[in-house]
Amino acid sequence: MTRRIVVIGGDATGMSAANTALRHSGDDEVEVTVLEQGHYTSYSACGIPYWIAGTVSDRDDLIARSPDQHREAGIDLRMRTEATAIDLDEQVVSFRAVDGDGEDGELGYDDLVLATGARPLRPPLEGIDAEGVFGVQSLEDGEAIIKDLADSGHRRAVVVGAGYIGVEMAEAMILRDLEVTVLDQAPEPFTQVDPDMGAIVREAMEGMGMTVRTGVSVEGFDVGDDGRVTAVRTDQDTHPADVVILGLGVRPNVDLAQEAGLTIGASGGIVTDVAMRCVGHENVWAGGDCVETHHRLSHQGVAIALGTHANKHGRIIGTNLAGGYGAFPGVIGTAISKVCSLEIGRTGLGEAEARAAGYGYVTTRIESTNVAGYFPGAETMTVKLLAEKRSGKLLGAQIVGRADSGKRIDVFATAIWNEMDVEEMTFMDLSYAPPFSPVWDAVLVAARKAAKAVEEDIPVSPA
Amino acid sequence: MTRRIVVIGGDATGMSAANTALRHSGDDEVEVTVLEQGHYTSYSACGIPYWIAGTVSDRDDLIARSPDQHREAGIDLRMRTEATAIDLDEQVVSFRAVDGDGEDGELGYDDLVLATGARPLRPPLEGIDAEGVFGVQSLEDGEAIIKDLADSGHRRAVVVGAGYIGVEMAEAMILRDLEVTVLDQAPEPFTQVDPDMGAIVREAMEGMGMTVRTGVSVEGFDVGDDGRVTAVRTDQDTHPADVVILGLGVRPNVDLAQEAGLTIGASGGIVTDVAMRCVGHENVWAGGDCVETHHRLSHQGVAIALGTHANKHGRIIGTNLAGGYGAFPGVIGTAISKVCSLEIGRTGLGEAEARAAGYGYVTTRIESTNVAGYFPGAETMTVKLLAEKRSGKLLGAQIVGRADSGKRIDVFATAIWNEMDVEEMTFMDLSYAPPFSPVWDAVLVAARKAAKAVEEDIPVSPA
Repeated sequence: MTRRIVVIGGDATGMSAANTALRHSGDDEVEVTVLEQGHYTSYSACGIPYWIAGTVSDRDDLIARSPDQHREAGIDLRMRTEATAIDLDEQVVSFRAVDGDGEDGELGYDDLVLATGARPLRPPLEGIDAEGVFGVQSLEDGEAIIKDLADSGHRRAVVVGAGYIGVEMAEAMILRDLEVTVLDQAPEPFTQVDPDMGAIVREAMEGMGMTVRTGVSVEGFDVGDDGRVTAVRTDQDTHPADVVILGLGVRPNVDLAQEAGLTIGASGGIVTDVAMRCVGHENVWAGGDCVETHHRLSHQGVAIALGTHANKHGRIIGTNLAGGYGAFPGVIGTAISKVCSLEIGRTGLGEAEARAAGYGYVTTRIESTNVAGYFPGAETMTVKLLAEKRSGKLLGAQIVGRADSGKRIDVFATAIWNEMDVEEMTFMDLSYAPPFSPVWDAVLVAARKAAKAVEEDIPVSPA
Repeated sequence: MTRRIVVIGGDATGMSAANTALRHSGDDEVEVTVLEQGHYTSYSACGIPYWIAGTVSDRDDLIARSPDQHREAGIDLRMRTEATAIDLDEQVVSFRAVDGDGEDGELGYDDLVLATGARPLRPPLEGIDAEGVFGVQSLEDGEAIIKDLADSGHRRAVVVGAGYIGVEMAEAMILRDLEVTVLDQAPEPFTQVDPDMGAIVREAMEGMGMTVRTGVSVEGFDVGDDGRVTAVRTDQDTHPADVVILGLGVRPNVDLAQEAGLTIGASGGIVTDVAMRCVGHENVWAGGDCVETHHRLSHQGVAIALGTHANKHGRIIGTNLAGGYGAFPGVIGTAISKVCSLEIGRTGLGEAEARAAGYGYVTTRIESTNVAGYFPGAETMTVKLLAEKRSGKLLGAQIVGRADSGKRIDVFATAIWNEMDVEEMTFMDLSYAPPFSPVWDAVLVAARKAAKAVEEDIPVSPA
């Protein structure tokens, strides 16, 4: 008998699960229906800031696969169709047509995949719904911003939040020739790295002509008679704005899952086992931005909204749906971003995370260069490491630098993945040639200094 | 009593050992004498092609520390002084002044460090000593080439050997506006990667306007009446040349060690233990290009001439001389190079090496991009992996691509260092953002395909 698979959400996890399940199943073994409430499938949300910046010229470049391509692959894809309820006992999903021109109804399933993604945080501040205040989550958001920037003579952009989306949108606004102010309540921008590293990011952003105001809380938005935002008010000052970008982060979109009675973790994400199966439900699966995953260092559940995890989850779910074996090994918090020419990478635990996880640790920070110091284009790169006290186990790495610095974070990520201690890393056989690194690569220099700190048990002054 | 340390060779290993020993010893605990036969200390031999190319403008940029700086650090440095014999029983080194204006004599030692480096291969071919035929090993060589290129209207350069020095010098000659022909006896250039990857290097070099002639043996050099080279003769053809660069590789310089009775390994390098102590001799140490080191995959002794190993050896020797603990963990054959915009990285074993080591293996090759496929500057990167049959243990990785591809080899190096199997690598948490990689980084795509090949035990057709 053909197994009926229903997937809620047509982006990375959902479509990857759907395609993998179909591809690895025999003829007529499975029948896959995907419900997607938006206009698009399988798009790169991470690419939206670069599209808005004009770096990527065409919206369609961000779409890995269109609805029609998915249909050609044999998926029953229902666009503009919102799942409204799940009955886990009856194994039925209710849905409605978003535009009113489609049909409402119910779908029975044998297997259900939840890929409902995340929702941007949007605090109920005065004026937040004014014209000219934009989130950056969907292609529709991107279209709205591009239209707005084309239509009018905007001069001043205010970006609220200095995380990934915040700094990437700050870059986009600079590239669109706007004056940019970035606001954040933390003491330094980009709290994905520790404050001492964030201070380097701040300095670089200011060097790019951005105004960075930290330690401020946004309290509301001034709105003109035409209904359009005119300024952002914080607890300390007011910043005139022609356009406002919200980059306050996201949280897992688990309304449906919660109403259906699925287990939600402390992080706010759906709890699954390593096969990405919702705990206690043999035939319900979830992945992507709506779930929490195991952090291999803190051993806690974390909800990390990233396309790379979402794609992995989708592939694992699809493999399992097709009778194969897929298991997600967890995350270590690796991420990379850039603001114009400044690259920022991080993996493992920052200081606050390490403390929250109960680790005792030492920290070190070194400066090195991307290429041999005498080579043209040599630029400073700062590397911070956290290593566990006594064991010396690498707990975290943060890199801030210019060209060719950020991706070195993957070497640290691979080291953490293997539970290496910093002493072991000191003499690793990494590649060297003058156009690629100093004779002691920054990774090795950092490891050596960290090993010394572990040996001497140098106390940490909180960053 | 002050311990007398004598170091033979004043480049990476020797000076690093000398400085580390001094820095980590108490006042008057050690007295360090270094004998260096050349004019320079602590220079970047790897940087010479870039200096010749004009990419690095000043010779002094390549000198990490001058003789005077070493002397200020307290080292008794004797330049232009050649060690001529070692008496291990009497613990005495004989030396002579190279220029005749210094003194000859003997030095007693308590500890001896051999850092005699490597010698370029220079087969006894007819005409090899003609004017206009250059090796590229020392700063003196670099000076001679630069002087020669400045003095005359050269048009055609022939590079003999398509290894690291060969391709880097081919780049240098192109940047100096010469017509470049590269000759090698192997079927494809750059035998540090397998022939199927070398073919990509060849195509790229030809695309840069170089002539690449492989499968040819150089038989001699035609010399004009003025004593200057005019052409390079192979077993198949003759290539007119105004200047000839030899890039035939190097071999460990072990004459002194051999005469003294130290053990030389099958690779041609001095045999040491992990502390870099010559086997059987408590107080004799050796490191850098003149030794062989343990290969962590083949478990054989290999002589790899690379500044990064030389510096590590020097630090380890110096640490041990100062009563600390240093141990060299071996190598895995990681290296990186480039020809103009083409980057080449390799780590672990190539196919011939894997076979010679007795491994059964599968291979896979994938194409990916350096950044998200839709991102400006996206360029193809080819990654080849070797994984052990059954176990799936990663045995080797090779990368050929453009910007931002080569340094990814360090991720594979770290994986090999940790004896990861390719299946484990498939879902590693590596960094992702569109300006840095596709959502599945090339490392993960390659690992997944290799895991599949291991599972299906796909036979290897010899590359």
